Amino acid sequence: MVKVGILGASGYAGAELVRLLVQREDVEIIFVHSNNYAEIPFSKRYPHLKEVFDSEFSAMNFENNEYFDQVDVLFCALPHAKSQIAVKSALEKGLKVIDLSADFRLKDAEVYEEWYQTKHQVSEALAQAVYGIPEINREAIKDTNLLANPGCYPTSIILGLYPLLKEGYTTNETIISDSKSGISGAGRGLKDGNLFTQATETIQPYAVGSHRHTPEIEEQLSSISGEKTSLMFVPHLAPMQRGILSTIYIKNERNLSEDQLLALYNQYYEEEKFVRVLEKGETPTTKAVSGSNYCDIGLAVDTQSNMIVIMSVIDNLIKGASGQAIQNMNLMLGLDETTGLTQAPIWP
Amino acid sequence: MVKVGILGASGYAGAELVRLLVQREDVEIIFVHSNNYAEIPFSKRYPHLKEVFDSEFSAMNFENNEYFDQVDVLFCALPHAKSQIAVKSALEKGLKVIDLSADFRLKDAEVYEEWYQTKHQVSEALAQAVYGIPEINREAIKDTNLLANPGCYPTSIILGLYPLLKEGYTTNETIISDSKSGISGAGRGLKDGNLFTQATETIQPYAVGSHRHTPEIEEQLSSISGEKTSLMFVPHLAPMQRGILSTIYIKNERNLSEDQLLALYNQYYEEEKFVRVLEKGETPTTKAVSGSNYCDIGLAVDTQSNMIVIMSVIDNLIKGASGQAIQNMNLMLGLDETTGLTQAPIWP
Amino acid sequence: MVKVGILGASGYAGAELVRLLVQREDVEIIFVHSNNYAEIPFSKRYPHLKEVFDSEFSAMNFENNEYFDQVDVLFCALPHAKSQIAVKSALEKGLKVIDLSADFRLKDAEVYEEWYQTKHQVSEALAQAVYGIPEINREAIKDTNLLANPGCYPTSIILGLYPLLKEGYTTNETIISDSKSGISGAGRGLKDGNLFTQATETIQPYAVGSHRHTPEIEEQLSSISGEKTSLMFVPHLAPMQRGILSTIYIKNERNLSEDQLLALYNQYYEEEKFVRVLEKGETPTTKAVSGSNYCDIGLAVDTQSNMIVIMSVIDNLIKGASGQAIQNMNLMLGLDETTGLTQAPIWP
Amino acid sequence: MVKVGILGASGYAGAELVRLLVQREDVEIIFVHSNNYAEIPFSKRYPHLKEVFDSEFSAMNFENNEYFDQVDVLFCALPHAKSQIAVKSALEKGLKVIDLSADFRLKDAEVYEEWYQTKHQVSEALAQAVYGIPEINREAIKDTNLLANPGCYPTSIILGLYPLLKEGYTTNETIISDSKSGISGAGRGLKDGNLFTQATETIQPYAVGSHRHTPEIEEQLSSISGEKTSLMFVPHLAPMQRGILSTIYIKNERNLSEDQLLALYNQYYEEEKFVRVLEKGETPTTKAVSGSNYCDIGLAVDTQSNMIVIMSVIDNLIKGASGQAIQNMNLMLGLDETTGLTQAPIWP
Repeated sequence: MVKVGILGASGYAGAELVRLLVQREDVEIIFVHSNNYAEIPFSKRYPHLKEVFDSEFSAMNFENNEYFDQVDVLFCALPHAKSQIAVKSALEKGLKVIDLSADFRLKDAEVYEEWYQTKHQVSEALAQAVYGIPEINREAIKDTNLLANPGCYPTSIILGLYPLLKEGYTTNETIISDSKSGISGAGRGLKDGNLFTQATETIQPYAVGSHRHTPEIEEQLSSISGEKTSLMFVPHLAPMQRGILSTIYIKNERNLSEDQLLALYNQYYEEEKFVRVLEKGETPTTKAVSGSNYCDIGLAVDTQSNMIVIMSVIDNLIKGASGQAIQNMNLMLGLDETTGLTQAPIWP
Repeated sequence: MVKVGILGASGYAGAELVRLLVQREDVEIIFVHSNNYAEIPFSKRYPHLKEVFDSEFSAMNFENNEYFDQVDVLFCALPHAKSQIAVKSALEKGLKVIDLSADFRLKDAEVYEEWYQTKHQVSEALAQAVYGIPEINREAIKDTNLLANPGCYPTSIILGLYPLLKEGYTTNETIISDSKSGISGAGRGLKDGNLFTQATETIQPYAVGSHRHTPEIEEQLSSISGEKTSLMFVPHLAPMQRGILSTIYIKNERNLSEDQLLALYNQYYEEEKFVRVLEKGETPTTKAVSGSNYCDIGLAVDTQSNMIVIMSVIDNLIKGASGQAIQNMNLMLGLDETTGLTQAPIWP
Repeated sequence: MVKVGILGASGYAGAELVRLLVQREDVEIIFVHSNNYAEIPFSKRYPHLKEVFDSEFSAMNFENNEYFDQVDVLFCALPHAKSQIAVKSALEKGLKVIDLSADFRLKDAEVYEEWYQTKHQVSEALAQAVYGIPEINREAIKDTNLLANPGCYPTSIILGLYPLLKEGYTTNETIISDSKSGISGAGRGLKDGNLFTQATETIQPYAVGSHRHTPEIEEQLSSISGEKTSLMFVPHLAPMQRGILSTIYIKNERNLSEDQLLALYNQYYEEEKFVRVLEKGETPTTKAVSGSNYCDIGLAVDTQSNMIVIMSVIDNLIKGASGQAIQNMNLMLGLDETTGLTQAPIWP
Repeated sequence: MVKVGILGASGYAGAELVRLLVQREDVEIIFVHSNNYAEIPFSKRYPHLKEVFDSEFSAMNFENNEYFDQVDVLFCALPHAKSQIAVKSALEKGLKVIDLSADFRLKDAEVYEEWYQTKHQVSEALAQAVYGIPEINREAIKDTNLLANPGCYPTSIILGLYPLLKEGYTTNETIISDSKSGISGAGRGLKDGNLFTQATETIQPYAVGSHRHTPEIEEQLSSISGEKTSLMFVPHLAPMQRGILSTIYIKNERNLSEDQLLALYNQYYEEEKFVRVLEKGETPTTKAVSGSNYCDIGLAVDTQSNMIVIMSVIDNLIKGASGQAIQNMNLMLGLDETTGLTQAPIWP
């Protein structure tokens, strides 16, 4: 029995961890932390899990935390900079730590501090952290105790570009990702832009060229391609609960045909349980992955402009957050990677 | 290994049967029937199940159907009057039949013919059909070979009223159910009212006092209460994919307190895995049951008007259709009733 | 030129007043008040009105307010209890005041204080306040300086019941209104239930038997019928921006036929520009009134249960708030009642 | 009094023409054509206009059509290739014709026939047709009798790129437009992809590099820039009723600063009533133009990649179709261009 605890369980990513873990017979959730909702039953905040998971949230201090002694795995689903001390403490106690925040995704503390405007308190741990996209670095994940779980946008973009970049496919022109996210990507915080009346029936770009996921994506793309790779990244909010679609544009400098492109992606992903490469002429839709750990990828070559268009969709809360975190946990524990993640998508 | 076939698998109820059954290790889907989509892979019509269930739809003639020889259980998810011959044939071959249409829900062929404006072709089988709400008539379900799976609205209303009526609670005033359904309740047919642009951002009543679920509900309520029980039923379409909420109004002629009412419902449902009775002051929301086989029930007594308000929510495609059908199948096969139905609701 | 000021212009009702008034050539908006958004241009909070209305919000103290000297009409769109002093001051200065809060809707200060849990500071003005549904009390509205603008739910229900009750139609059974509102009815406040992810794809009843609009509705219904009239009122939140549908159930004790019922409603409303009585068999949809000052009413008689079902829809922000406020202003100023309110509904 | 007729008035663009024209005192709608809905009152298909416009649809033969003798202006809102004969006939009768289909947008009949797979029946009229974006070619519009009303996507993209291209701004890299449309852009046809349950809660690209608007856009962009200009155009369907957002990417080869870019756009559009250039750092949202004839444009320069990002939003049914058609009609008739188009956007 794997014993796990979840920090920051009152947000959507935390709640999704609970939903996905609670039904496993080989996992026990020992605690769900939230200072704001301490002593309130989890199922009062998330009534869908009434009678499924009724434990109370626990408040806690992250230093010398006795809760940590009771678990094997610690998930951190707090906003960035809020759980660094907890991560450090948990590592010292020998736990396996999976951090869903941005804190351990960048290798360079200075870059982190520039983009997140806060000093990193545990920068010495950055070197040991492994960026967790199993389809790309499965072996490293198996060996680490500190897993930096990728952001939602980055997951969709990196999986979309991986085969091309891994093959050394380069371009002198800027790669562009025009990405669209459902509103749950903005969390359950009380912000005007998250209100139903403000967010529904509209689509809007934001943080043009300045979104914090940019350095994370570029660092990973550069690591894959072996050279500095830049991306123009424009995120948008779309009026739906879940889902990310990244429409990625890259110059087709090697003049690949659509068939060649598809063959390449199938070669990379045919053994991957959670990546589905669509057939020629098909485009992905976020609905088809909703509720699942899948990433669907569609591919097109526009011969007139000689551009490659890669379209990648995920459920932002599952493959883009909690599902991938569990996939990583499975690997870190030597379990079958798909355990607890085989729920089919839900439609409609 | 239980071998099943599904007639009418191209609609939402059929697709939901596939989604729920395909992941079971003790069930094998032998065929999915659709004349309109014959030889098209299921996952072309339902791309969420790509690589999960890629079998092709089969066209078939329902008389002397050899497909039926290959299965133990036949699900019929066709519109009313379309599968009566198939049901007859399957019963003769010794299959267990679960019919999701309205064809075997009413005991009286004349009532059926009046409301559905078509002659019943297998009226001799009506007597043996069992109406399948396990929480109410579990034992009869175990013993039948012909299961009439309830309608979505009826399930929400009957479960909502069951404890009161079973206790002989009667009233001289009309019981009212103001019910609201998501658009999937209207199916995947190409109708103007089902279009996104017509159905979103609006709510509308329809079939006031004339919905075909009315005789089905009244027959069941009368059977429970032991006397003729009438219902004023007004369905509405609400702009959401899934979910039914029935807000039921009944005169509180025995002057029950809210605590007494809650105690009664808890007594009836505390052992029921799929019915959750909310606490005092709580109201149910369809989101909390979405993706699950739950029925959530909230209760209130308005002392000023002395009315009882029962609020009952289900996922119309699961507890209101395919989930309940599987729950019934489990009982008919002597399996644990919850097998394959323990997926937690999804939120948001 | 009519000069108007708006208190509480940062909320949806206030913004809708601006939208509807700004295009009139006979009206000038002198100030829009908001303490929270003082000195911020209106069109920064409401970007749809960029280049249409860019004035800044003004903070103000409501006693001896010099702003009030500059206007003829004061609209108060603040929450209840926030503008009573302003109303008093404005009346003393001779302004015509239209209050969209609940503060002057109830005749009895004690009832107000019981339901709103706050002492009324200007209870002496209650007697002079006129409840403003023009279709019902047009003449009184013309003569008042203090207009209590009705709530959104009450408008839909009272217009729905008015002809029946006015004709002395009584019943021994409880009248029920099962009402459904779009999310804008809950305002632009930062509340968890107003979040897109919490409010979309679900429908939920709330405040069963305890909504603050109940005494307001009952007082008006009793005034119309001439005897104490009670209502069981259950509001629901539906996942749409705008719109209210009230489905009203009343025993048909005089055995009216559907034709008689329609004839009665047509007699009352045929001259009313903003009330449309649907034809036999038609049901109203909130989309058909969205963006307009219309109230659409559908009628049905269920012969089996002998119930009358009245279905009434409005745009909660227009006929349910700001449109009706302007309709009332027009009457108070001796203008054509429809001035500035003839924009057709928008579909889809 | 201007007398107008509308062919194809049963679709959304036709209905929007009715809604916008019916309230004008200087315009009379003489007929609304639809063969499918002949003799059915318009307000039965569009109940929002009950009591506003109740005339019946008329069926008609387009040759020697006597209806045409009764009007000054003919709007054609039929699908492509369906009204070419009507256009020819109307021109011969001296009417001013505004065609909302694609039939007269391309100068070259061969290009038309290649993309629309049908022979053009009135290709001789292509030369006299004027492409109607008033902000770009106002004078030519005033002088024509045959107005080709632009597509929705093209309007958003061309207005977005116009100042840059007009200034001779060129690039060796491909210009990309990642465009997102609400579902009304797909019309009111009974197609599976238009169903609520299929279209809501998802976003999906389609027609990648092959959308029929591509040649139209490229022809106009080339005409503006004075040289062949290509565009990589990827449309998407977003789950909302109305609105188009085009996010346009173009290499910043002249190294414009954001301030310079804004100054350029303000210079071009400051006199334009229907184009609003946002301030630095602001991004447009489709909600802010919904229900209006506005085009909002946001601008950004990403210094890292040296890309310009132009974000352009319109209401696809108004500035993208019927509103712009009326704007063109006003110009063709010598009226104030804004007549009947000053309704403010609606929010929420």
